[in-house]
Amino acid sequence: MESNVRNVAVVGVGQTAFGKFLDRSLKGLGAEAIAGALDDAGARAADVQAVFAANAIAGLITGQEMVRGQVVLTATGIEGVPVVNVENACAGGATALHLSWMAVASGQVDVALAFGAEKMAHEDKRKPVLAIATAMDVEEPIDVDSPSPFMSHYASRIRRYMSDTGATATDFAMVATKAQRNGALNDLAQYGDASITPEDILRARSVADPLTVPMCSPIGDGAAAVLLVAQDALNRFPDAQPLYIRASVLVSGSDPDGGGAGAIERAARAAYDQAGVGPEDLDLVELHDANAASEVMRYESLGLAAAGDGPKLVRTGTTARDGELPVNPSGGLIARGHPVGATGCAQIYELATQLRGRAGARQVATPRVALAENGGGWVRGDVAADAVHILTT
Amino acid sequence: MESNVRNVAVVGVGQTAFGKFLDRSLKGLGAEAIAGALDDAGARAADVQAVFAANAIAGLITGQEMVRGQVVLTATGIEGVPVVNVENACAGGATALHLSWMAVASGQVDVALAFGAEKMAHEDKRKPVLAIATAMDVEEPIDVDSPSPFMSHYASRIRRYMSDTGATATDFAMVATKAQRNGALNDLAQYGDASITPEDILRARSVADPLTVPMCSPIGDGAAAVLLVAQDALNRFPDAQPLYIRASVLVSGSDPDGGGAGAIERAARAAYDQAGVGPEDLDLVELHDANAASEVMRYESLGLAAAGDGPKLVRTGTTARDGELPVNPSGGLIARGHPVGATGCAQIYELATQLRGRAGARQVATPRVALAENGGGWVRGDVAADAVHILTT
Repeated sequence: MESNVRNVAVVGVGQTAFGKFLDRSLKGLGAEAIAGALDDAGARAADVQAVFAANAIAGLITGQEMVRGQVVLTATGIEGVPVVNVENACAGGATALHLSWMAVASGQVDVALAFGAEKMAHEDKRKPVLAIATAMDVEEPIDVDSPSPFMSHYASRIRRYMSDTGATATDFAMVATKAQRNGALNDLAQYGDASITPEDILRARSVADPLTVPMCSPIGDGAAAVLLVAQDALNRFPDAQPLYIRASVLVSGSDPDGGGAGAIERAARAAYDQAGVGPEDLDLVELHDANAASEVMRYESLGLAAAGDGPKLVRTGTTARDGELPVNPSGGLIARGHPVGATGCAQIYELATQLRGRAGARQVATPRVALAENGGGWVRGDVAADAVHILTT
Repeated sequence: MESNVRNVAVVGVGQTAFGKFLDRSLKGLGAEAIAGALDDAGARAADVQAVFAANAIAGLITGQEMVRGQVVLTATGIEGVPVVNVENACAGGATALHLSWMAVASGQVDVALAFGAEKMAHEDKRKPVLAIATAMDVEEPIDVDSPSPFMSHYASRIRRYMSDTGATATDFAMVATKAQRNGALNDLAQYGDASITPEDILRARSVADPLTVPMCSPIGDGAAAVLLVAQDALNRFPDAQPLYIRASVLVSGSDPDGGGAGAIERAARAAYDQAGVGPEDLDLVELHDANAASEVMRYESLGLAAAGDGPKLVRTGTTARDGELPVNPSGGLIARGHPVGATGCAQIYELATQLRGRAGARQVATPRVALAENGGGWVRGDVAADAVHILTT
């Protein structure tokens, strides 16, 4: 069914620093990331023909609902073009990217912009936590007494994974340590600590056994943007260093065929099919480490490790920055940060920066094929939305 | 750029009754509309390959953000397929439809479902009014003392239109009367009054001069759904009575070329181009009458009347149900109701019902070409998002 699809390239990426910026607006953050992506591509605002904007909780945090993308664009010079505001919980950024890809691949437009922006930090610290809990079915009961309903929900699945595979809290602490050490090399990361140890991680305050605070993605603000162009229109941006999107897949949870494969696994399989590559071809991965355990579990869902072998990748250092298959060299959600709607585009920022060899101190060895996985929400016992993109030089 | 586009048909439409249903959930309303659309097409849940879901203010009214579509789908049997949650203020429904069309037209999928669902009614009546006000840039000052910030904002533009064209409050009262009389013939309409007169409308409580309460779209709950299929896959639904989408256009406000054309006018022009028809070819229109005056102004923006001639279409009865070009035979936003995210799909429900000759007492004479226009939000002095669709038998 995809015979009509055109090749699509990433020509520009932009990202703000991630962190807690009580004095910055959604508009200012979004506009900075967009300006960065345009500048990176050598593009002007007038080159953009369609915009897909992701945000998750501005309605609950800043009061801005419904036209969040258009409001951000007032600060960018981009106007008059179709704007679609998308939401898919923590996978909103990759959903916007997927639709931008679809708009270009299908020939609707030649140049599309995806961006995600999020303001989460709030003087009332409960507010973002409760807002994030709306990524589940709010008509179903949740543990509202938990300090983090989402993490508490994750924790029971994690304990089952530990008993099934022998994964230990120390494995998760090693993942969190990797995240902090990578984050320390990333100027845009919210956190980073080059000298932290797994023991420090294990000793930290507990969120929900086995997770401690530094094993979980933080509350933060930030924005990221990606400019896409049809391969046959690349001559409009002669100064850009293009990267190619080989796969763009979005799925939602629950397997219609009852085969038991979860959303992440199905998204990954479809993406490998679309790209004509397998996990063994990957040089670099940015995945959705909502917490350190979910990174290990995703090694298996994405086919990077066989079933039950997730912890081995940690113990052997395979996914370290200087390992065989670096995962989350940006610091991932845990250290780079996770301003919800921005994450999917921030992952592409990192892949593009690495594939171009411009990642400085955190550069991984000459990557050519890279994968990003961004998941969000929890409905019907599975991830509500999961998107996988594969990029190549 | 659209050489790759496949023809797309509407094969199923569904709509709930619109009204104030404090005891009904977003999930129940959405599921009813979706079941109606599947049933209408002779389709099963497993036939649906992608879903685009529109909702505007559930986050502020019910607390459900981020994965609203997935939550509604739990009550439908549709699972595992890509789900995108879209928002574009009052144009969310048509935005979901546009993306569904894009997914099918581009060959990404053969069968896509667009739906919009909205719960607005709340025990605290201020809540939906303030929620709707988030369709503007919340960082800009608004008249929070107004009983309806949005209508108050409209009112100043309306007064300028009146002084430019000679339109009178009586013209607007006649539009509202038409809406109520049409609504009286529509079982799914929130309001309808076969015996109301323009004098009744003028005597009603003022919202913001010249608008009175029955000239404005009400707060309400409801859902609508549209099932789309590629023309070359129509054989999957042998019992369906297909209608063809000749144009699907989405734009946002502000003219990039500085030519002064507003979003509605640009969307209409592009849709006429795409469909290869002009306003003179239309047999039927459902347009976004957020209030009675905006219907008259839209006659001009959509090219149904020359500049300044909007009021003539009212005075001559041209747009009455039995007139030359019936507009809003459903009762429109004013009488059928305007559960924000649902409206764009409800307009298509009406066009399809009329084009198939199944509208019963409100049937207009043998229509073949019909247009729907759905607008939303207000940013940078223009409609933030406007979508136009043209359907034919």
